[in-house]
Amino acid sequence: MEPQRRPGGRSARVREAVLDATTAELAEHGYPALTVEAVAQRAGVHKTTVYRRWRSPEGLVADALDRAAEQSWPIPDTGTLTDDLRTLTELLRTGFTAPESAPVATAFVAAGMHHPEAAAALRTFYAARHREAAVIIDRAVARGELEPGLAAVEIIRFAVAPLFHRLFITHEPVTAADAERAADAAIAVARLPRNTEKPGPPR
Amino acid sequence: MEPQRRPGGRSARVREAVLDATTAELAEHGYPALTVEAVAQRAGVHKTTVYRRWRSPEGLVADALDRAAEQSWPIPDTGTLTDDLRTLTELLRTGFTAPESAPVATAFVAAGMHHPEAAAALRTFYAARHREAAVIIDRAVARGELEPGLAAVEIIRFAVAPLFHRLFITHEPVTAADAERAADAAIAVARLPRNTEKPGPPR
Repeated sequence: MEPQRRPGGRSARVREAVLDATTAELAEHGYPALTVEAVAQRAGVHKTTVYRRWRSPEGLVADALDRAAEQSWPIPDTGTLTDDLRTLTELLRTGFTAPESAPVATAFVAAGMHHPEAAAALRTFYAARHREAAVIIDRAVARGELEPGLAAVEIIRFAVAPLFHRLFITHEPVTAADAERAADAAIAVARLPRNTEKPGPPR
Repeated sequence: MEPQRRPGGRSARVREAVLDATTAELAEHGYPALTVEAVAQRAGVHKTTVYRRWRSPEGLVADALDRAAEQSWPIPDTGTLTDDLRTLTELLRTGFTAPESAPVATAFVAAGMHHPEAAAALRTFYAARHREAAVIIDRAVARGELEPGLAAVEIIRFAVAPLFHRLFITHEPVTAADAERAADAAIAVARLPRNTEKPGPPR
């Protein structure tokens, strides 16, 4: 028995309710204040159900990240590499700074700093996001904007890393100009002539 | 009265002892476990002294960061831009992964995620580090390796951001090859032809 994730079944509905409640709690109170009890109460589910299946706040965060990774991202498709990548970094910037999305997005990153389970979920989550976004590079190659053979995911990482660096390491503001600059820098790296003998930066 | 930071005075010695104890506690137990009591006991100072001057664990972390910012960094000076920047990113990588330094370095970053006071201290700390490291770019310009007029600090940020992204956001391993690739990517950005009318990436 226990068909825990039968789509549309009672178990799936409980998961949706619990993870929605987790997200709402994170948005309102942040990660350090997240408790299984508050999530259970908000979801209208008995707390032993939540404990049995998710065990802890970290378990809840990890599963909320897994659910987010299952949902796809609105990858820009503007027709040019520059606009696609600038749109992507701007989406990321607004996701982490807009009042309606920043608290949850920030809480996910904060959870990863403190709990191996959340860190592993973040790793999986971002691997999925990077794979999805890599289509921007693939399309640019197909249009002849970039040479084939690039490590597309690496270019995506270069485009987003400067934003995360400002947000979570140096705690500097991130402007739209910063997001644009990061996208343009990644494109410069993608356009580097490559040494096929000893692969350079964008491999 | 209260010449709190007279160099070499009793107050300065207390500060040294308390911040050394803070660093040792962070290394052993991590940031979430840091308490004023444990730091006071380790430093051999009465806890009311610590409370009066530093108020909280965040105050201790912020002052430990301020002290670290006062100390200068061993900025590489190898004679070439590539080797300087690769050495810098490798120093950063080992600082955050070597068992003797990683716990404290990681604790500082983690503290910034949770407390505005620590976040402000990190911002000041990294601004000082970036300014110091910018000499690598200035020297490359003086040698004729780069065009003058670059925003040197921005190049340093591009070099280090991919490492922090892997360490604290995606929780991926950071290899020596990753550190080298990040340095090389930043150099590619520094070498971009610049449009003087509308400044491009490396401004």
